Amino acid sequence: MKLNFFDSYKGLQKVCRSGDYKSITNIHLLEKTFKDSLDYLINQNKENLLSTITGKTYFAFKKKNKLSRPINTRLYIPETQEIKNMFEVLKSSTPKNVKDYFNTLEPDKITSLVYTIAISFCCATDLVKDGDQKTPGTFFEYFIGSIFAKLLNINPSHRIKVLSLDEDDVTLPTDFIFDLGKNKPKYHVPVKISTRERSIQVWAHQRILNGVHGTGRFLGIPVIMTETKLSKDKKEVTEICTPSQWQIYQMHIAQLKRIYYLDIPEVYNNLNTVFPPIPVNQFGYFFFEVDSFEN
Amino acid sequence: MKLNFFDSYKGLQKVCRSGDYKSITNIHLLEKTFKDSLDYLINQNKENLLSTITGKTYFAFKKKNKLSRPINTRLYIPETQEIKNMFEVLKSSTPKNVKDYFNTLEPDKITSLVYTIAISFCCATDLVKDGDQKTPGTFFEYFIGSIFAKLLNINPSHRIKVLSLDEDDVTLPTDFIFDLGKNKPKYHVPVKISTRERSIQVWAHQRILNGVHGTGRFLGIPVIMTETKLSKDKKEVTEICTPSQWQIYQMHIAQLKRIYYLDIPEVYNNLNTVFPPIPVNQFGYFFFEVDSFEN
Repeated sequence: MKLNFFDSYKGLQKVCRSGDYKSITNIHLLEKTFKDSLDYLINQNKENLLSTITGKTYFAFKKKNKLSRPINTRLYIPETQEIKNMFEVLKSSTPKNVKDYFNTLEPDKITSLVYTIAISFCCATDLVKDGDQKTPGTFFEYFIGSIFAKLLNINPSHRIKVLSLDEDDVTLPTDFIFDLGKNKPKYHVPVKISTRERSIQVWAHQRILNGVHGTGRFLGIPVIMTETKLSKDKKEVTEICTPSQWQIYQMHIAQLKRIYYLDIPEVYNNLNTVFPPIPVNQFGYFFFEVDSFEN
Repeated sequence: MKLNFFDSYKGLQKVCRSGDYKSITNIHLLEKTFKDSLDYLINQNKENLLSTITGKTYFAFKKKNKLSRPINTRLYIPETQEIKNMFEVLKSSTPKNVKDYFNTLEPDKITSLVYTIAISFCCATDLVKDGDQKTPGTFFEYFIGSIFAKLLNINPSHRIKVLSLDEDDVTLPTDFIFDLGKNKPKYHVPVKISTRERSIQVWAHQRILNGVHGTGRFLGIPVIMTETKLSKDKKEVTEICTPSQWQIYQMHIAQLKRIYYLDIPEVYNNLNTVFPPIPVNQFGYFFFEVDSFEN
């Protein structure tokens, strides 16, 4: 069987590897990858999952004995008109108009639209590949990277210069860096499907940026999809969260500016209300908050 | 087929989970797990691998179309008498006698003995399990943890207290902590089969220990087996090393006291000779250096 969504993904990969995240071609390929994923998923079965997470229900796509990752029922809204509008805006508008458009939507709605696009490709991949974590993760990076690039009107880089007294041209591989130029913020944007026990890496990279370039120069704003875990035999969804460790990281390693989630865990959201707070939010709020980061 | 080495491992796991790493029972089970692994491997085929690493050759055990991880030909010395002596000493001697015994051996020889024991179980597991990385990693932790526990005469813990102004009893899960008590060092010992791109975690955890308890209170000495990677289709062994990143971590995140390897990569060994140096050494030297850490 021909897997169109995978062909579209390969086209997307080619453009993103060239670095041109904000190009119209790239947004077009993102849209095509999403549509093809949806066309594939529409023919698959669905199965409701058990959820141990208060207030959230999940289902999965199913093909023979393969189960996709869990999908948050409330967040998943594959009606194509709103998503189509969103892609139209991303393709045709200036960065200012892109932000204005998103500002006409509710943050909850934006989060849902982005979640739906991101997870559709991941689920389609789950059903055709065995244990492939890398492809969904890379797609999610491309997608979030493109939104940032379009909105900030700058393509990201993946390396930063490190001042070295003894050697020229020492660089460090990083997650996305969006450098808005002189007297403007530089964004450090790790994009992860989930962090689990690896979340400490995000703070450690921020620490290096602070150490090398000075605290406050790079604003760390990771974008994470979810912290769900599916037990395949029990068909049960849990969330893996370590809030007290996050507090220790934020106090003792480095300070992140915001942590954005598509499927936000309640225990992390609650970190906003303790002292010292950690600013965790739904990704939809990014479009409303981004201007305030510059001050 | 009955897999004795796996039954022995399960016994070992039971004792280590109880926390009694330095018990005679534990050392006995380590020895049995090693012997049973060797008995299993002796009936398997061997295949020489291509090596891109200067000065090192590798082979793998083979069973039907399954290949074990690569084994450093020079380091692998399964003649059992020397290893038998080593286990006898670990079982029967006081910590001081254990150190005296190791000090009669060459550091190279100690490294080889420890490497042989560690990798035999890993290879046996590779041939019977599919993609199981966890079991070999846990075995390696148990083994290195037991050597430290025996030599330092103290069992490790896996959590440390974190001072919190608002809450009692906040603890942080850690790698091995060996607390020698008042006016003595506390060792922070991450044990890893390999670090690859995850090495930053070791420095980040050290950073937290420094932040919470003060710099110099915990001496970070990770013990790592190897950085080899086997390309299964080309049957070729490479080493994945990031020395310039290590220098950045050591300068900007935290300072590790020693980094010990069983199969030491030359590029990391060379970090001793640049400034600022990073102290990387063969594990065999630990038994000669440990006393100097207390000063």
